[in-house]
Amino acid sequence: MPNYFIESADEAYSRLAWVAYFCLMSISQNIKVAVDAVVFGYVNKQLQILLIHPKSEASKDIWALPGGFVRDQEGLSAAVKRELEEETGVQADYLEQLYTFGDQVNRDPRAQVISVAYFGLINPEQVELEANTDAQYAAWFPINQIPDLRFDHKKILQMAHKRLQSKLLYQPIGFELLHREFPFSDLETLYQTILGKKLDRRNFRKKILSFQILDDTGKKQKIGSGRPAQLFRFNELKYKELLNKGFHFDIQFA
Amino acid sequence: MPNYFIESADEAYSRLAWVAYFCLMSISQNIKVAVDAVVFGYVNKQLQILLIHPKSEASKDIWALPGGFVRDQEGLSAAVKRELEEETGVQADYLEQLYTFGDQVNRDPRAQVISVAYFGLINPEQVELEANTDAQYAAWFPINQIPDLRFDHKKILQMAHKRLQSKLLYQPIGFELLHREFPFSDLETLYQTILGKKLDRRNFRKKILSFQILDDTGKKQKIGSGRPAQLFRFNELKYKELLNKGFHFDIQFA
Repeated sequence: MPNYFIESADEAYSRLAWVAYFCLMSISQNIKVAVDAVVFGYVNKQLQILLIHPKSEASKDIWALPGGFVRDQEGLSAAVKRELEEETGVQADYLEQLYTFGDQVNRDPRAQVISVAYFGLINPEQVELEANTDAQYAAWFPINQIPDLRFDHKKILQMAHKRLQSKLLYQPIGFELLHREFPFSDLETLYQTILGKKLDRRNFRKKILSFQILDDTGKKQKIGSGRPAQLFRFNELKYKELLNKGFHFDIQFA
Repeated sequence: MPNYFIESADEAYSRLAWVAYFCLMSISQNIKVAVDAVVFGYVNKQLQILLIHPKSEASKDIWALPGGFVRDQEGLSAAVKRELEEETGVQADYLEQLYTFGDQVNRDPRAQVISVAYFGLINPEQVELEANTDAQYAAWFPINQIPDLRFDHKKILQMAHKRLQSKLLYQPIGFELLHREFPFSDLETLYQTILGKKLDRRNFRKKILSFQILDDTGKKQKIGSGRPAQLFRFNELKYKELLNKGFHFDIQFA
């Protein structure tokens, strides 16, 4: 409260100096703030990324990350959620800040724009929904078949991919990408796909189950010609309890 | 190159639309971009933080993180280095982006300002130098004796402190805070200070030495009344070699 009242001449001078400074800044700082989202989905047993085809460049074969300029009086996370939904019809299940790109002042050739990039995960239910929206310019691309991207978006995407790979080893974020109930083989395939390498299946299963954060649903699913597989569910409550006790989720594969 | 030439009516229209959009944006987006730095030093065997006393608020007892507005045509890292040196006379030995604060649109009561926050480490040689500069408004504060800070700077500081604590466990950044040659007990005290807990000294020494990233300099230093202690030096080259071989620096203390 006292911040908004002027109590002395000294303070009046200080406030005035700030107002003058800001008037100057509003003329002299000519930097725009944008947000961009790298959204991962696990579609058709492949790690895929959500891209949009900017309308203004429809005649060219340039794709881009969903994103755009932040509005006045809008917070950064609110802006990225709004842009994502406007451009792709999708709401991210998991969204966190990745990095702010602004060391290259000409990363956007039109003006000096810094981009606060986010990293998101979408579960399969939403992946399917997405095709029903009217977002005709949005599409999923497998991580190893990314087309040319606008500005430095490929760099942003690469950083997000690395973050996903490393997070997978110390945070149970993989579950965000799977169906709510899943056979263990899905989790295994997901890890193998994201990390881009074969895992020792027995060790992986033993390690994951030892954390006791997977509940057996009692249900079974028939996959291919093999015998029906147990369906598991991630128990987030239990995971949080363990975290509070100092538990350390760490999957390192030698 | 072809990006800068207009090849069709379609493209001309597209370019024009962008120019119109930007003219509009330059009026309508009224968000300012600032950078702030949380710089840690290990001073008098305490983890300390570099703060400044903003001149415009000299009559009040409000301290702040070093930082300020990004200039036009200036990259973000360049801006934070410049502000840090202008306000404190210090050059960070290690500097990385921490997080961009901009979810609260009124975090700065004067205008909508987003802050790209950085996290830095200073070695002891610089800590001592700093007192010789004419940065009369800069001072070190022990992490457990932080005064009131401007805006959301305390929140920024807390996030940086957590990042330092967790990075210490999987990246050898602690060495940035020590003298180039140091007795092992210094490293031990540093870890205990930053993590805020007692370590099992024997286990710690065994684990760190097992990484073989410390060189014995052959020199000794007399500390207190005990027998002289070996001086070690961090071998960054060797560490990088190990990293390339897939080495994982991980100090978990149960």
